[in-house]
Amino acid sequence: MREDLPGYVVALDVGGTAMKGGLVTRDGRVTALEGRPTGRENGPDAVVAAVRAYTGELADLGTSRFGTPPAGVGLAVPGFVTDTTAVYSANIGWRDVPVSAFVPDGIPAMLGHDVRTGGLAESVLGAGRDADDFLFLPIGTGIAGAVVVNGEPYGGARGWGGEIGHAPVWPSGEKCACGQIGCLETYASASAVARRFETRTGRTATAKDVVSLAQAGDQDAREVFGDAVEALSISLASYVLLLDPSLIVLGGGLAEAGPVLFGPVEEGLAARLAFREPPPLRRAALGMRAGMLGAALLGWRATGEPDAGRGWSLDVLRGGAVS
Amino acid sequence: MREDLPGYVVALDVGGTAMKGGLVTRDGRVTALEGRPTGRENGPDAVVAAVRAYTGELADLGTSRFGTPPAGVGLAVPGFVTDTTAVYSANIGWRDVPVSAFVPDGIPAMLGHDVRTGGLAESVLGAGRDADDFLFLPIGTGIAGAVVVNGEPYGGARGWGGEIGHAPVWPSGEKCACGQIGCLETYASASAVARRFETRTGRTATAKDVVSLAQAGDQDAREVFGDAVEALSISLASYVLLLDPSLIVLGGGLAEAGPVLFGPVEEGLAARLAFREPPPLRRAALGMRAGMLGAALLGWRATGEPDAGRGWSLDVLRGGAVS
Repeated sequence: MREDLPGYVVALDVGGTAMKGGLVTRDGRVTALEGRPTGRENGPDAVVAAVRAYTGELADLGTSRFGTPPAGVGLAVPGFVTDTTAVYSANIGWRDVPVSAFVPDGIPAMLGHDVRTGGLAESVLGAGRDADDFLFLPIGTGIAGAVVVNGEPYGGARGWGGEIGHAPVWPSGEKCACGQIGCLETYASASAVARRFETRTGRTATAKDVVSLAQAGDQDAREVFGDAVEALSISLASYVLLLDPSLIVLGGGLAEAGPVLFGPVEEGLAARLAFREPPPLRRAALGMRAGMLGAALLGWRATGEPDAGRGWSLDVLRGGAVS
Repeated sequence: MREDLPGYVVALDVGGTAMKGGLVTRDGRVTALEGRPTGRENGPDAVVAAVRAYTGELADLGTSRFGTPPAGVGLAVPGFVTDTTAVYSANIGWRDVPVSAFVPDGIPAMLGHDVRTGGLAESVLGAGRDADDFLFLPIGTGIAGAVVVNGEPYGGARGWGGEIGHAPVWPSGEKCACGQIGCLETYASASAVARRFETRTGRTATAKDVVSLAQAGDQDAREVFGDAVEALSISLASYVLLLDPSLIVLGGGLAEAGPVLFGPVEEGLAARLAFREPPPLRRAALGMRAGMLGAALLGWRATGEPDAGRGWSLDVLRGGAVS
């Protein structure tokens, strides 16, 4: 702990359409603010300006509340990203934006990849607290993972790793929106489950609806959901054999299905592994807050406190004090 | 450098049927000895005794040559293994053998997993010298990989990682000897290529023969070799998407096919990646010596010199001074 530093950071989770911000003190007290739109439709420069305006507002709020500017700023952003540059986001359209463009002048700041930043939060504060080596896999509109290695999310040589959603599961299967064939995401994301059910039946339904229909015995829903489960099982089997995680943490919208998803995936994964036991599957603990909490950890790292969060009493596993 | 330590280590690469040993000085001079059988047919205790006898002989040879016992011993062994224990090898049959059982009393020693130890040597001395994040994939009788992360081979939570040969590539494909379905190894190992050609044609051939026949236009050989290439392409695409390596290093018997293998795999890998470039493929530099050289690095690590090898002048990439 550097006692000379002010007592809080600004944390921001920038998604494609909305961003969520908050203030987080050195001892882990969180003030989460209302989210606001990124304004993606106005182009990448406008998004950068909107982020900067929001961090400025948060810094002002913190200054009036704590009597001092923030010690640092952490930002989780989509796409390819390093600690200091938002390299590229297909979703937002920006290229090579330096971290300084997102924050008020003179405040140390650090960027992180959105999913890896969520994985960092799950690692330090959430479902991976007791694990050094695990996969954090949020299953939402898309699928990407945080590969946690020796306690840290690992992005590979250039930070392009974690794209497990676009690893092939059925190499002669359906074409994915990304242009490849048979990607996990094209069978198992929440939007894929909804889309494949609609294509098959002509009936519109959310992924949640499809899961309920499958439970109720609807044959089309059972097959679509079954494909998602099998795709996840194949993909997780590859992961386990390659990286021997002690744990798999599933998050995102589809994981809210709970035992209805976890049971069949556990069975499917075990069936794909002949010579070793599968690791346990666990539900993500932090939900939609993972990105913002991870961004807070990055903000503290930017100030030179890499171990921030390890001692926070925040009992997120029991749905505790985060607000 | 700890100048008070003796100037060499004993290095041993223990395979299923044979072991190769040598003496390696602190500045990288290698004296490689004739290999000898492990005597696996005599049971695991006899193998442990044979290894211990061989390290003892090597230590005696070193003592007479250098006037001092070895500073340390490094051993690459198959199966599940930690720094200090050979946990299990299906091939040899041992369970929970402490490293001390393999070496003369009182000499510091370290164990390593065979493929990861080879990957360590390729990382420090070989084809991965300029890369921190790469895959070392020897393709021989079987297939397993060394996942090099931040410059170090990574074995996962318990050291069971790297089993890329048993990750599924065609989930409804052929049954593998391991009991799983559609594993990479069952299509792309050197023995799989030979076996699948024989099953299809009734003609006995080595993998090398099959590659030559495919080159000469034999349709069966083309299809069998083509399946191996496609299986490797699918598997490497998954690896690249998940772990974003800067390099893929192929080794083992099948890699000796050279451009005949590398060209089609490069093409197949690029075809499987729609939104990113593939990393370059490179041939392993150390060949059969990788395990023994990696074991030497482990021997130096056992003495408290984790950076041994980084400064060795040994120019293995040009086929130089190793002998």
